[in-house]
Amino acid sequence: MTNLNKVTTRTVLIISDGTGITAETFCHAVLAQFDSLKFRQLRIPFVDTPEKAEEARIKIEMHRATDGFRPIVFSTLVNAEINAIVKRADAMFLDLFTTFVEPLETELGVQSTHSVGRFHHTADSAAYKNRIEAINYSLTHDDGQTTKDLEAADVILVGVSRSGKTPTSLYLAMQYGLKAANCPLIPEDFDRGVLPSWLPQHKHKIFGLTISPERLSEIRNERRPNSKYASIENCRHEVKAAEEMMIRENITWLSSTTKSIEEIATTVLQKLNLEKGHF
Amino acid sequence: MTNLNKVTTRTVLIISDGTGITAETFCHAVLAQFDSLKFRQLRIPFVDTPEKAEEARIKIEMHRATDGFRPIVFSTLVNAEINAIVKRADAMFLDLFTTFVEPLETELGVQSTHSVGRFHHTADSAAYKNRIEAINYSLTHDDGQTTKDLEAADVILVGVSRSGKTPTSLYLAMQYGLKAANCPLIPEDFDRGVLPSWLPQHKHKIFGLTISPERLSEIRNERRPNSKYASIENCRHEVKAAEEMMIRENITWLSSTTKSIEEIATTVLQKLNLEKGHF
Repeated sequence: MTNLNKVTTRTVLIISDGTGITAETFCHAVLAQFDSLKFRQLRIPFVDTPEKAEEARIKIEMHRATDGFRPIVFSTLVNAEINAIVKRADAMFLDLFTTFVEPLETELGVQSTHSVGRFHHTADSAAYKNRIEAINYSLTHDDGQTTKDLEAADVILVGVSRSGKTPTSLYLAMQYGLKAANCPLIPEDFDRGVLPSWLPQHKHKIFGLTISPERLSEIRNERRPNSKYASIENCRHEVKAAEEMMIRENITWLSSTTKSIEEIATTVLQKLNLEKGHF
Repeated sequence: MTNLNKVTTRTVLIISDGTGITAETFCHAVLAQFDSLKFRQLRIPFVDTPEKAEEARIKIEMHRATDGFRPIVFSTLVNAEINAIVKRADAMFLDLFTTFVEPLETELGVQSTHSVGRFHHTADSAAYKNRIEAINYSLTHDDGQTTKDLEAADVILVGVSRSGKTPTSLYLAMQYGLKAANCPLIPEDFDRGVLPSWLPQHKHKIFGLTISPERLSEIRNERRPNSKYASIENCRHEVKAAEEMMIRENITWLSSTTKSIEEIATTVLQKLNLEKGHF
């Protein structure tokens, strides 16, 4: 008897001369459009010699043989020789690189440099140094740990405890090299009815996060079950007070309740006009 | 007189119904192959209604008019109607989505779902919760702050102070939802000649980072200029002692000197076999 409901698992290989992280993220986004199917994913990074290309080709062929289906290969191989070796395998190739570089050569009227591994900033570059400095800054300025050196901040996130400030700050530092401080709004601030005293002078770079009281209570209960801190009444009170304060102080804010870290970060960049667009 | 050396700056627009971060990273990688040219980049995220598509179209046309060249548009628009509106503009379109989804529909024998915004995990998903937990874990287990709960770690990075452990830990947590602890190897450990006492039982998940003494001295000098800590002699001594210890303890390690955070993270995943390949 044949099981008609059996879902075939297709093998997906991500082959790159660098880390393959960009290709991997992209691959997930594309394959999310086929959510009735199952995929088994294998990333083969650092394929930068003919020998490694040959190994990758053999891996593809092995999956071809065991699966009974040809594997799907997302590749970002800059070097033509290496690319050609991998492509000898029987697979469906989605070549992220050649697909776009060739039409761009025509459009721009110049040849591409075909240089390998230009995806990420390496440790000796200024951009890398900047990124590490931003990460260190965001770590030392997490959760209002220090109010020193806020002049250097690109952005200061504010919001009640557990509204998503820390992951967003770290993401902004990691992905965009931005110095992102964050500072909690706490019951004492609501009692006084004003922002902590060191903040108003930096208002042009403050961005607020809020969250639904229900979701906040859920998150806080995981940390401190059955506490006043986590109770829905207290969460309702804090969220309401924080939102009223942000409105009063004219601070731009969004609700993190149903947002990903990437979505929050993108909105912060947009609203504070922080994107550096030249390269 | 014409200046033949004048480099034309081409406008590049990244248009997405989500954040456009994946497309942006991909766009940088592709355009890095044209390093003799200059690009002005503008990301237009959250284009998820016909109205926003119309606004995006107008922006493209404005750049078309002021530049005198047609802009280059990297787009990841899932919705056909929205995509069609944007594409009315006079630009070079590199459609990251349709380019790969259509051949995949043929290969897989199913229609894609055409659902918008599937790129990142939102706050209500298990994957998101896992990611936030990993970030919190990595923050509380940064720089050997605590030796508690190391059983829960997916990876424990070790290495001398300023060898790249913190950014790598945070990246592994942020990008892969892995609980990454890190613990410095310090002069006291080298004097005793053994790993800190709480580490050997976790050896299967320990990964070492090293760095060239010259680079280390440079980094440390930025933090504590002219200190013994930053001196090249001390850096040479610490790096040598740390590498000898890692060899003696049979710990897999790599040098972070010329590596990006992404490259280090990818190598850690490979060597410790941490990639979760099913989705």
